[in-house]
Amino acid sequence: MSAFSVIGKPVRKLDGKDKVLGRTRFVSDITLPGMATGRILRSPHAHARIVSIDTAAAERLPGVFAVIHAGNVTQQPFGYGSDNLPLKKDKVRCAGDEVAAVAAADGEVAERALDLIQVEYEVLEPVFDPFLALAAGAPRIHEERTDLDGNVSMRWDFETGDVEAAARQAAVIVEGEYSSPLSAPASIETHVCLAEFSSEGHLDVWTGVHMAFMYRKALADSLDLDWREITVHQPPIGGSFGGKIDIDPIDFITVLLARAARRPVKIHFSREEEFAGSRVRQPMHFKMRTGADADGNILFREAEVVSDNGAYNAWGSHALLVVMQTISSLYRVPNSRVSSRVVYTNKAYGGSVRGFGNPEATFAVEQQTEQLADALGMDPMDIRLKNANQSGDVTPQGMRITSCGLSDCIRAVRRQSGWDVRRGRIRDQHRGLGAAAYIHVGGGARIYPSDGCGSILKIDEAGRVTLITGASELGQGSETVLAMIAAEELGVPLAAIKVVNDDTEVKPWDVGAHASRTTFVAGNSAKVAARELREKLLETAGEFLEVDATDLEIRDGLITVKGSPGRSADYAKIARRRMLRQGGSMLIASSFYDPPTEPQDKRYVGNISAAYGFGAHVAEVEVDVETGLVTVVDLWTAHDVGRALNPMGVEGQIQGGAVMGLGLALTEELGIGDGHILQPSPREYGMLTALGVPPIHITLVETIDPEGPFGAKGVGEAGLIPVAAAVANAFADATGVRARSYPLAPWKVLEWLRQQPPPS
Amino acid sequence: MSAFSVIGKPVRKLDGKDKVLGRTRFVSDITLPGMATGRILRSPHAHARIVSIDTAAAERLPGVFAVIHAGNVTQQPFGYGSDNLPLKKDKVRCAGDEVAAVAAADGEVAERALDLIQVEYEVLEPVFDPFLALAAGAPRIHEERTDLDGNVSMRWDFETGDVEAAARQAAVIVEGEYSSPLSAPASIETHVCLAEFSSEGHLDVWTGVHMAFMYRKALADSLDLDWREITVHQPPIGGSFGGKIDIDPIDFITVLLARAARRPVKIHFSREEEFAGSRVRQPMHFKMRTGADADGNILFREAEVVSDNGAYNAWGSHALLVVMQTISSLYRVPNSRVSSRVVYTNKAYGGSVRGFGNPEATFAVEQQTEQLADALGMDPMDIRLKNANQSGDVTPQGMRITSCGLSDCIRAVRRQSGWDVRRGRIRDQHRGLGAAAYIHVGGGARIYPSDGCGSILKIDEAGRVTLITGASELGQGSETVLAMIAAEELGVPLAAIKVVNDDTEVKPWDVGAHASRTTFVAGNSAKVAARELREKLLETAGEFLEVDATDLEIRDGLITVKGSPGRSADYAKIARRRMLRQGGSMLIASSFYDPPTEPQDKRYVGNISAAYGFGAHVAEVEVDVETGLVTVVDLWTAHDVGRALNPMGVEGQIQGGAVMGLGLALTEELGIGDGHILQPSPREYGMLTALGVPPIHITLVETIDPEGPFGAKGVGEAGLIPVAAAVANAFADATGVRARSYPLAPWKVLEWLRQQPPPS
Repeated sequence: MSAFSVIGKPVRKLDGKDKVLGRTRFVSDITLPGMATGRILRSPHAHARIVSIDTAAAERLPGVFAVIHAGNVTQQPFGYGSDNLPLKKDKVRCAGDEVAAVAAADGEVAERALDLIQVEYEVLEPVFDPFLALAAGAPRIHEERTDLDGNVSMRWDFETGDVEAAARQAAVIVEGEYSSPLSAPASIETHVCLAEFSSEGHLDVWTGVHMAFMYRKALADSLDLDWREITVHQPPIGGSFGGKIDIDPIDFITVLLARAARRPVKIHFSREEEFAGSRVRQPMHFKMRTGADADGNILFREAEVVSDNGAYNAWGSHALLVVMQTISSLYRVPNSRVSSRVVYTNKAYGGSVRGFGNPEATFAVEQQTEQLADALGMDPMDIRLKNANQSGDVTPQGMRITSCGLSDCIRAVRRQSGWDVRRGRIRDQHRGLGAAAYIHVGGGARIYPSDGCGSILKIDEAGRVTLITGASELGQGSETVLAMIAAEELGVPLAAIKVVNDDTEVKPWDVGAHASRTTFVAGNSAKVAARELREKLLETAGEFLEVDATDLEIRDGLITVKGSPGRSADYAKIARRRMLRQGGSMLIASSFYDPPTEPQDKRYVGNISAAYGFGAHVAEVEVDVETGLVTVVDLWTAHDVGRALNPMGVEGQIQGGAVMGLGLALTEELGIGDGHILQPSPREYGMLTALGVPPIHITLVETIDPEGPFGAKGVGEAGLIPVAAAVANAFADATGVRARSYPLAPWKVLEWLRQQPPPS
Repeated sequence: MSAFSVIGKPVRKLDGKDKVLGRTRFVSDITLPGMATGRILRSPHAHARIVSIDTAAAERLPGVFAVIHAGNVTQQPFGYGSDNLPLKKDKVRCAGDEVAAVAAADGEVAERALDLIQVEYEVLEPVFDPFLALAAGAPRIHEERTDLDGNVSMRWDFETGDVEAAARQAAVIVEGEYSSPLSAPASIETHVCLAEFSSEGHLDVWTGVHMAFMYRKALADSLDLDWREITVHQPPIGGSFGGKIDIDPIDFITVLLARAARRPVKIHFSREEEFAGSRVRQPMHFKMRTGADADGNILFREAEVVSDNGAYNAWGSHALLVVMQTISSLYRVPNSRVSSRVVYTNKAYGGSVRGFGNPEATFAVEQQTEQLADALGMDPMDIRLKNANQSGDVTPQGMRITSCGLSDCIRAVRRQSGWDVRRGRIRDQHRGLGAAAYIHVGGGARIYPSDGCGSILKIDEAGRVTLITGASELGQGSETVLAMIAAEELGVPLAAIKVVNDDTEVKPWDVGAHASRTTFVAGNSAKVAARELREKLLETAGEFLEVDATDLEIRDGLITVKGSPGRSADYAKIARRRMLRQGGSMLIASSFYDPPTEPQDKRYVGNISAAYGFGAHVAEVEVDVETGLVTVVDLWTAHDVGRALNPMGVEGQIQGGAVMGLGLALTEELGIGDGHILQPSPREYGMLTALGVPPIHITLVETIDPEGPFGAKGVGEAGLIPVAAAVANAFADATGVRARSYPLAPWKVLEWLRQQPPPS
């Protein structure tokens, strides 16, 4: 019998059935009396000066409640570097930039009103290529930012040890350039925002954001509102994959329209607008070299990175923090140097998409790992094992590795894929095997003064246990795992728990869902509250059973006297008796868990996560050399998840991540023409469907993290990170040709094969 | 400068502006996707056997999703004595009884479906008069209740001292019979219920109930549901006056329809259905006598009471508990006897309407007080003062009188009305003055094992203080006064507080809003949580300011070092700094307050309230002897409210109560014809409008209750209780004729005057 009643058992998502049956009520399902429909007028130009806006005809259209533009609203810049405005003022910097907006009786009227708005532009020369944007004489995109040198908006540089000296000692050095594409999080639910002011000026906003308290502050800051008088409601979120982390122009504009129209306003993006008006995964370009000694010990790694971040700095501008960590800390790398720049271009701009820089960096790092092995005549798995991070390590960036199953993960996929007998030996079938490992934060990520999450837990007279959590459910299964944690720690059946994740008035503070932190941080928070509540519960039971509380134990809701199984009481009855009596009281506990981490210092050194996740994938690909089509035949994955609290949920996250990674590796890329996204639909964009997914084999390595709740570590992004790297390595194994970018699209594959035909 | 920053200052209702402007979103404003409209088929007969129900034609009607009746649903009896069924099975017992129900695409289809349901009845002899119902051979209404003797459903008897001996010693004894009418709470919002099952079987209900946890239990018990899997949502309530305390057939039926139709269903009563299908204030009949010695000391009071409670026992069946208290405990009454019966009749049945038996009892008691004075040649005010309850008294029913301003209230209205020079001296103008006092629970009422209320209080990084309260806002202003209490005790500005009163998942337990208990019980609960939170806040401030917390004070959000006004900190910054740091924590506190009271024992002795409210009214009336029209010219009121936390709110409650009392005294009575309510509209029923209201003069007597929050006592029902009695006494002063019943409707007045013409 397991020590646990709930933890470790596969549990279907508690909110799954409603979602599958179309019963879940998303923001788009909310209709308020008198609600108007909002629409946004977007720039057709990638770079232009706004000469004039004439809204008179639109305002006269019957059914139009408000027409807003930069000239008639109060707005302050937002974004990193305060480089963005909800409604653009003097200039537009990418196609799709928000220029005006309308609230009207319905969408049809709103669209007609948009058509009636006259905007005169003076078109400027755009720049879409980051290297052209870096060139002398390039068009200046943010000339108002006199703090900047040209179009470079940020620099993230890190150095440890002596790279030059290490390079001199290296037996082999591999070099290469690698690029990642412009892609989209493409959640099923598009962006939607509903805003309403009460007659007293209180603002209620319903949205899919999962950083609700940050969002509230950003709204208040940019629109000069009292942040105490904003309630951010979080109905169930129809997917995000990071795309809804940022506060976006849609949010500000909806609020501005609600204020101007004096009624509730909802803006709901069509699928096309979702592509055109939302954040993207920005392209990155790596110039990297790695060196090792003759025994295969990695001596140094060095990279120059350019992040083609688009027109404004949203969350995407910070993805280089993660890039830096992978370069400095995936495997033991004594000497490393990262020099990276975030560059403005006249394109869709970067948000925080699942993996957040790590798939991009891992694509470069792990190709070089296999290149190094090949150059040394070593097996790539051996070089990985030789250099693998180990428990007890502190990486040069100060990441304290506690639990670490990296070597076990490598060994698992090596064994399961038949690596030792198949790698390099199936090229005749146009097949190959490739591997990639990763390191990622798995115990929060201190990017803000607090990385905390609050919980409130109570038991009512029915025995209903309500967990009011600061966490956000965005489809990742947090509601289910938090219920499991609370049930296990409190000692009650899972069915007794209800997780409430409501609005910023009701829920305790939480920094938000990002960095795979929810199970770890919100889970620990729920666990602390549950422990306190269990103590109170057992104290009360001791009173009624006339024994000392320390002689009691609780499991599945049954409180028993240790050693006297006959003496027992139901937890709900105890809670009820405690409350429903003279001078009684309700069982309520609260907690706030902030992980024991530290912010990075100015040198980017600091243990920002309380645990780190590791894993390894092996992909087997088949390459059709006639068409260039690369097919992934099998994907073996092994992940150090600490402990799989809900194995079904963990596997679901890994599978989902892997599928998303396969899409990136093989098909997903947004083309840009004249600054416009060329394929604004999931089909044209190339998202994988279930039919395109190979068998995904999952091994869970349980290292039982000392700080994680019941030993768990975050796993939300893990499945995605090493996929493109493993596929590229497999492609190289199959063809002898290195993929320098992903996706491994047929047109690119044919071109690479043409340049360097595979050995026949 | 007041010792208080917030308490004692007049504050407009925080939710008032939205309500006035029509912006508040009530249950009727909620629309869910796929929602069906429910309608109820009601019995046209007051007493009949249901022979058969044929729903086949209704089921075939396009747009009909479900047709339910007792034959195709699972339901258990509910109500006191389990004498009621949501959908009646074998018998109907009053006109309007629920026989079947339909869920359809819209109201029109639903109405057509109702028309298609064929119900065959065997009509039985009805009985509408409670005394006929008590007679031998009367039709038996609940023949299935073999536990009962005929139509008497309950008896409430109390005796103290020796009434017979006291009667023998009495110098004067007055006797009389008094009746109160069938009336309606008639809130602006009619009953409405919206129910939805999730795909996992979880039930969400939106309703105007203000006993949410009791309601949840009743739903589960009657419909065989798991009460853990029911969430009762409480949107703002558009008035209740007690009419929404009970769970009603509408609630069960909506849930049954939602289950049968497999979609959300809403039933919203029309105004007519509200009168026909909701609980009423049941008529009561008193046979009473009171005796006093020659000095005016009341020696005994004795009453036989018949409560004409209608077809079923809802809350109204318990109003005799309050009747009993007023008879035994209004003034010092050493010997008393109450013998009372609740009688079934084939009529609309009683709920818990504001005052809950007390206006009825006070009408009888206080007329006899003035009759006694007249018989002794004393001033009625003098006899009241001589016998007034005093602080320190324990009444024969065990009510411990702590704070008591009864004498002050009597003196106040005596002085302000010019009583001593005008009473008995304006009869020539067909005018008269009459007084009445009351006693009422003001510190909760322990009618359940717990009279408690929970609170959760938290401060977020914006300085927003959220109070999640168990209390229910039903228009009485609880949200405002709870915010004031929390603000005062915590030491922050009122604007910082937001009161959340959401649903049974989020809110801590509370027995519900009844018995004028919310300010007292929920207020104390909020105060306890706020005190704890203030201590934590000052501790944190002490840490940052490097002083001992005991050296700090907080007012209006500013924390200062005592004696060093220059050293200060804003509470929000302290809360933010506490949370937004490594290892930080959020300021959260919770509480549960159960007043120090006891349930009544089997003899009805027990101190069920932690405080008692007192007051006195004087009414001046003018009687048109030609038309019988009685006009109240002025109403002077004085109430011992403990402390007026929000004077504007307290005065509003007293005014509102007084207006409701004036309606009862003068116009409101529901006529019954063949068992049907004859005037199912506010206008025909006779509700007063602002134009019909005389000047209402309010004096607040502040006795600063030792247990009340900041000294406050409940005042929700107070203004209503003594009005009809004072008006009847004024009528007697003007005409020399005793009103034996209310309302003092012209047709009755003319009849009384005809029988006993006033001295000319």
